[in-house]
Amino acid sequence: MKTTKTINLKNRPKGKPELTDFDFTTSEIPELNEGEILLSSKYVSVDPYLRGRMSDAPSYIEPFELNNPIASGIIAEVLESKNNNFRKGDHVSGVLQWKETQAAKPDGLIKVDPDKASLSAYLGILGLTGVTAYLGLTEIGKPKKGETLLVSGAAGAVGSVVGQIGKIFDLRVVGIAGTDEKTEMLKSEFGFDEAINYKTTENMIQAIANACPDGVDVYYDNVGGKISEAVLFNINKFSRTVNCGAISVYNNTEMPKGISVQPFLVKKSSSMQGFVVFDYADRHPEAIKQLTEWLDQGKLKYTETIRQGFENIPQAFLDLFEGKNKGKMVVKL
Amino acid sequence: MKTTKTINLKNRPKGKPELTDFDFTTSEIPELNEGEILLSSKYVSVDPYLRGRMSDAPSYIEPFELNNPIASGIIAEVLESKNNNFRKGDHVSGVLQWKETQAAKPDGLIKVDPDKASLSAYLGILGLTGVTAYLGLTEIGKPKKGETLLVSGAAGAVGSVVGQIGKIFDLRVVGIAGTDEKTEMLKSEFGFDEAINYKTTENMIQAIANACPDGVDVYYDNVGGKISEAVLFNINKFSRTVNCGAISVYNNTEMPKGISVQPFLVKKSSSMQGFVVFDYADRHPEAIKQLTEWLDQGKLKYTETIRQGFENIPQAFLDLFEGKNKGKMVVKL
Repeated sequence: MKTTKTINLKNRPKGKPELTDFDFTTSEIPELNEGEILLSSKYVSVDPYLRGRMSDAPSYIEPFELNNPIASGIIAEVLESKNNNFRKGDHVSGVLQWKETQAAKPDGLIKVDPDKASLSAYLGILGLTGVTAYLGLTEIGKPKKGETLLVSGAAGAVGSVVGQIGKIFDLRVVGIAGTDEKTEMLKSEFGFDEAINYKTTENMIQAIANACPDGVDVYYDNVGGKISEAVLFNINKFSRTVNCGAISVYNNTEMPKGISVQPFLVKKSSSMQGFVVFDYADRHPEAIKQLTEWLDQGKLKYTETIRQGFENIPQAFLDLFEGKNKGKMVVKL
Repeated sequence: MKTTKTINLKNRPKGKPELTDFDFTTSEIPELNEGEILLSSKYVSVDPYLRGRMSDAPSYIEPFELNNPIASGIIAEVLESKNNNFRKGDHVSGVLQWKETQAAKPDGLIKVDPDKASLSAYLGILGLTGVTAYLGLTEIGKPKKGETLLVSGAAGAVGSVVGQIGKIFDLRVVGIAGTDEKTEMLKSEFGFDEAINYKTTENMIQAIANACPDGVDVYYDNVGGKISEAVLFNINKFSRTVNCGAISVYNNTEMPKGISVQPFLVKKSSSMQGFVVFDYADRHPEAIKQLTEWLDQGKLKYTETIRQGFENIPQAFLDLFEGKNKGKMVVKL
C-alpha cells in the first residue's frame, strides 16, 4: 500500500502553539472506493481559527483529535477518480487533511478553475477569507455610504479585503496593523484612507480619534484585546462591531480580561456581534460571485505570503501569531 | 412672587452618590406666560439612568448642570393653565424638574387618565419603564417561542416587566435578583419559571446552567458586572444580549473591568446591543398601547415601592443602588 506524509496534532497547545505540538508521520493511502477521488495537495491554508480547533473547549467547530491529522482549506489536484463528477487533472478546493496525498469522498469539495485565478486565490480572496470579509462586513457591519470603517488586523488575509470592500462601498476606511511596511501597504496598495501602526503608537485612543475624526461607525475586529478596548472610546452612536476574531488572545492561557464593554454599548446604543462564516453557508456562492466580479474589474487586489514545502506548514501557522504574514498565508507544496 | 421647594445637583458624585450631592433650595415660580401651565408634582420617578446625568461624561443624554434642578419623570396636576389644551385638574406625565410646583411649557408632556390606571403606573409599567422592557425585549432580544430568556435586575422596575412579557411570548423565563423575598416574588407573583439569588449563590455559572438547562437565548441585562460575566458561559449559539443598563458599575470610579466578551461572541455567533429607550421615541405610543392592553387583560402585573415626601427623593434614588426597591421606585408628594 502507498503511504503519504501526514501532520498530526500531537499535543493540545498550552498558550502559544509550538512546533513540538505537531507530529510528522507517515500514513497509508487506502485504495479508492467507488465515488472517491485521490488528491494531491497543492496549496495549504493556515488560519488563526485553527488555533481554536487545537483546544478541546467547545466552540463553533469541532476540536481536532489528538494523534490525528489536522485539516484546513486545501487546493488539491485530482490524481485518480472513481467519481463521475471529477476527472484526473481537475483542481478542487475544500477542507482536507494535512497530507501530501489523500483519498477523499468529494462531499463539500468544489472544483476551481486555474485559468480564472491563481490556485492560491481560491484559499484567499475567492475562498473563505474573502467570503468572511464580504459577509461579515455586509451582514453585521451593515455599512452606509460615507460612514467610517475601522479594521483591525488590517494587513491580514481578511482585513485587507474588508478595507477594500469598504472603499468600494464609499466608506472612510482606516486600518490598524503592526509594522510601518504594512500600514504603508494598506494605504498605497489597498486604498485605505489612513493606517495606524499599533506597535509604535503610545496612545491608541487618540490615534484612532485622529484617524477617524467623525468617529467609528463600523469596527471590523480581527484581533480583540487592547486594540479593541481603545476602539470603544471612539465608537459612534448606533455603531456596529463585527467580532470576526480575537487573534490577540487566542493563545492566552488565562481568560482574557479588559474593560467592560457593556457601559460603552449602552451609552452609544451600539452593537457587537460574533461572525462565523460557516453560519452563512447558503450565502457563500453569492459572495464568491461578487468577489470574482470585483476581482475581474480590478476593484479588489490581494496579497499573499507563500511559504514553500509540506514540512513548513506548522511554522507558517505559528508565524500568523507573530504577524509575519501580509495578506493570506498559504503553503505551496 | 411665589416660591417652591427645589432639589438641585450640588456636586457631581464621585463613585456612589451621597445625600450631600443634593441641595434643597427654594426657587421662584415665575408668572405664567401665554401657553404655559402651572404644575403641582404628585409622583416623582427615580431611576438608575439618572446617575449618568449627574456625571459630565458624554452619554446618550445631556448631563445635569451643577446648582440647577435635577429632572426626571414626574406625574403632575395642572393648577393653572394658559394653554388651551390643558385645563385645571388635568394630570400630565413627562420629564419635569424636582420642584413641588413649577411653571412649564407643555412640550413633551402628555395627559394621563387617573381613572384608567393609578397615577404612579404612568411612571412605571405604562411609562418609560414598561416601554423600555417591551421595546428592548422585542427590538433587540427578538425572542422566539420556546426560547430561554434570562433577566438580571429581575425584581427591578424594568426587569419584572421584561419577565412577564417573556411569559406572554411563551418563553422559559429565569430571573436574577438579590434577596430571597425578591426571587420568591418573581416566581409567585410574576410567573418566572426560575429565579436565582445572586447574593447567596456561590457559583453563578453553574446556577444559571441549572436554571437554564437549554442555555440562554436572550439575556436582558440591567446590571452588567460579575453577573453578566457568568451569563457568558451559558449563552447559546445566535443568542442576543440586550444591554439595557449596568447598575452594578454606574458608581465605579475606575473603568470597570472583566473577562473579555469578544471570544464568547465569536464562539457563539452571539450579539450584544445597547438599548436606550429614547432612540425609539416613534415606537412609544405603540408600546404603551400594547402594555395597556395586557394590563387590562390581567396579563401584566406590577409592583411599586412608593416613598413619601418631597424631601425623601434623594434617598429614594440612593436606595436604588442598594436594591431596596421592588419594582418601580417612585416618590409620592
